[in-house]
Amino acid sequence: MMPKRSLPSFCIVGENVVIEEGVMIGENVRIGHHSVLLKGTVVEEDVVIGNHAVLGCQPFKNARIQHESIPNHPLFIGRGSRIGNGVVIYSGAILRSGVMVGDLASIRENTVIGHETVIGRSAMVECRTVIGDRCFIQTGAYITADMLIEDNVFIGPEVSTSNDKYMVRTRTLLKGPYIKEGASIGTNATLLPGIIIGRNAVVGAGAVVTTNVADGSTVVGVPARQIGE
Amino acid sequence: MMPKRSLPSFCIVGENVVIEEGVMIGENVRIGHHSVLLKGTVVEEDVVIGNHAVLGCQPFKNARIQHESIPNHPLFIGRGSRIGNGVVIYSGAILRSGVMVGDLASIRENTVIGHETVIGRSAMVECRTVIGDRCFIQTGAYITADMLIEDNVFIGPEVSTSNDKYMVRTRTLLKGPYIKEGASIGTNATLLPGIIIGRNAVVGAGAVVTTNVADGSTVVGVPARQIGE
Amino acid sequence: MMPKRSLPSFCIVGENVVIEEGVMIGENVRIGHHSVLLKGTVVEEDVVIGNHAVLGCQPFKNARIQHESIPNHPLFIGRGSRIGNGVVIYSGAILRSGVMVGDLASIRENTVIGHETVIGRSAMVECRTVIGDRCFIQTGAYITADMLIEDNVFIGPEVSTSNDKYMVRTRTLLKGPYIKEGASIGTNATLLPGIIIGRNAVVGAGAVVTTNVADGSTVVGVPARQIGE
Repeated sequence: MMPKRSLPSFCIVGENVVIEEGVMIGENVRIGHHSVLLKGTVVEEDVVIGNHAVLGCQPFKNARIQHESIPNHPLFIGRGSRIGNGVVIYSGAILRSGVMVGDLASIRENTVIGHETVIGRSAMVECRTVIGDRCFIQTGAYITADMLIEDNVFIGPEVSTSNDKYMVRTRTLLKGPYIKEGASIGTNATLLPGIIIGRNAVVGAGAVVTTNVADGSTVVGVPARQIGE
Repeated sequence: MMPKRSLPSFCIVGENVVIEEGVMIGENVRIGHHSVLLKGTVVEEDVVIGNHAVLGCQPFKNARIQHESIPNHPLFIGRGSRIGNGVVIYSGAILRSGVMVGDLASIRENTVIGHETVIGRSAMVECRTVIGDRCFIQTGAYITADMLIEDNVFIGPEVSTSNDKYMVRTRTLLKGPYIKEGASIGTNATLLPGIIIGRNAVVGAGAVVTTNVADGSTVVGVPARQIGE
Repeated sequence: MMPKRSLPSFCIVGENVVIEEGVMIGENVRIGHHSVLLKGTVVEEDVVIGNHAVLGCQPFKNARIQHESIPNHPLFIGRGSRIGNGVVIYSGAILRSGVMVGDLASIRENTVIGHETVIGRSAMVECRTVIGDRCFIQTGAYITADMLIEDNVFIGPEVSTSNDKYMVRTRTLLKGPYIKEGASIGTNATLLPGIIIGRNAVVGAGAVVTTNVADGSTVVGVPARQIGE
C-alpha cells in the first residue's frame, strides 16, 4: 500500500481521476476515467475500478432519518475486487476479497460484503447490513438496513426488503430480514421486517413473505404459503 | 446569489466541476468533484451537492413520448438541501428547502418537491408530479408523471406507480395516483393509474391497488382488499 | 465517420469528455460534459449524448458468473439516437436508429435495441437480449439476459424478468421470457424464465406470470390467470 500520487507498480489510472489525501492503493490496481477516491479509502492489490465511481463518501446528516450511522472506519476494498461504472460506496463499508459490484450500484456505510459476493447492477445495500461469502445479490435488488445475510444466498433481481414495520409513523427498532445460508429469494419477491428465511429455503418469484420460512421449505404467493415438495 | 466564477463566501467546489452560464449559487454551498450545473440552475445557500451530479438538464424531444413537457423555469434547489452522488435533476424542477435527494436518484422537469422531503437513492420522479412537505420517497421507488402526493406521505422502497391505463395503446389522459396526507405505501406495492389513496391510509407491502382506498383504512393483497382494524 | 480529435462538422463536445482511440463519430453529434467513449465505439450522425455517460465498456471476467459473454463487436449507436445522463452501455451492444436511452440506464454486451425503441431511466438490459423496434421499456424495468422481445412491445415501470429457474443452484440453460409483438406488460409485473407472452397479450400490473400467455389474452393476479374479455 502506498499514499496518493506515488502510485505503486503496475497501476493504471484514467483521465481526471481524483484521489484525495490519505487514500491507500495496492499494486496492480486499474481505475477508469473520472472516478473519485475520497479521503482515507483503502484499495488492495489487483482491484479494478470502472469509470465515474465514487468511493468513500460520507452520509448526509438529517434529523428526519432514524438511527443514522457514522462510518466506523474508512472504505476498504479487498484484493481482486471489481467495481463497476458509476458505483457509489460509502466510507465504513468493507468489501472482502474478490467482491464484484455492478454498474450504478450503491452500498452504504458500516456494511460488510463477503468474499466473492456479487452485488448486481443498480442494486442498493443500506447501512449496517452484513452479507456473507459467495452470495448473489442480483440486479436492482434492494437490501435494507440492519439485515443479516449468511453465505451462499441468492437474492433475485428487483427483490425488495423492509426493516420498518410502522413505516416511520412510530420510532421503532429497525430490523431487516435475516436470511440463512443457502436460501434463494425469487425475482421481485418482497420480504417484511424482521422475518427469518431458513437455511436452503426457497421463496418464489413475486412472493410477499410476511412470516418466518422454515429451513429447506419453499413458499410462494401473496401472502407467501408453504408448498409441498 | 451570484453569477458563475465569482462564487460567494464559504463555497467549496471540487475538481472538474462544470458551472455553465447563468448559474446562481448562494453562500456556503459545497459541490463535490465532477458535478455539472447546467445553464440557469439556481442553488440557494447552505446546499451540499455530491460528486458526479447533473443538475438542470433538458428533456430530449421524442415524437413517441406522449404529453412531453418543456421546463417552465430553471431548476431551483432550495436552501439547506442535500443532493447525493450521481443524481440527475432536470430544468423545471423545484426543490423547496431542506430536501434530501439520495445517490443515483433522478427527478424530471416541472416537478415540485416539498420542504424537508427525502427522495431515496435510485428513486425516480417523473415530470409534472407534485410532492408535499416532509414525505419519504424510499430507495428505488418509482413515482410516475402527473401524480399528486400530499404532505407527510411515506412511500416504501421499490414501490411502483402508473399513469397510463392503456399502456400507450390508445392516446389517453395520463393520470397518476393521488396520495393524500399521511398515507403510507408498503414496500414494493403497485398503484394503478388515477386511484386515490385516502388520508392516513395504509397499503401493505406487495399489494396491488386497483381501486380507491378510503381515509384511514388498510389494504393488503393482490388485488388489494380492506382489512379490519 | 471520422477518427478521434478531428471531430466532424457540427459536433459539440462538453468539458472533460474522454474519447479513446479508434472511436468513430458521425456529423452533428452532441456530447455532454464528462462523458467517456471507450475504444472502438461507433456513434452515427445526429446522436445526442448526455453528461457522465460511459459508452463501450468491457464486461468483468468472473468465474462465478455463468455463460459470460465476450463482446462480439464494438458498441454501435445508430443515427439520431439519444443517450441520457449517467448511462452505461457495453461494447457489443447495437442500438439501431432513433433509440432513446433514459438517464442512469444500463445495457450489457451482445444486445440489440431496435429502431426508435425507448429504454427508460434506470432500466437495465442484460446480455444477449434482443429487443425489437418501437418498444417501450419503461423506467426501472429489468430485462434479463437471453430474452427476445419483438416489435411494439410495452414493458411497464419496474417490471422484472428472470432467466434462471434454479437460481444458480444448478448449472442450467438460461432462458429469459419471449415476448411477442404488441404485448403489454403492466407495472411491476414479474415474468418467470422461459415463458412465452403471446401477440397482443396483456399482463396486468403486479401479476406474477408462471406459464405461457395465449395471443390476445389478458392475465392478472398471483399466479397470473386469464380473465374474460
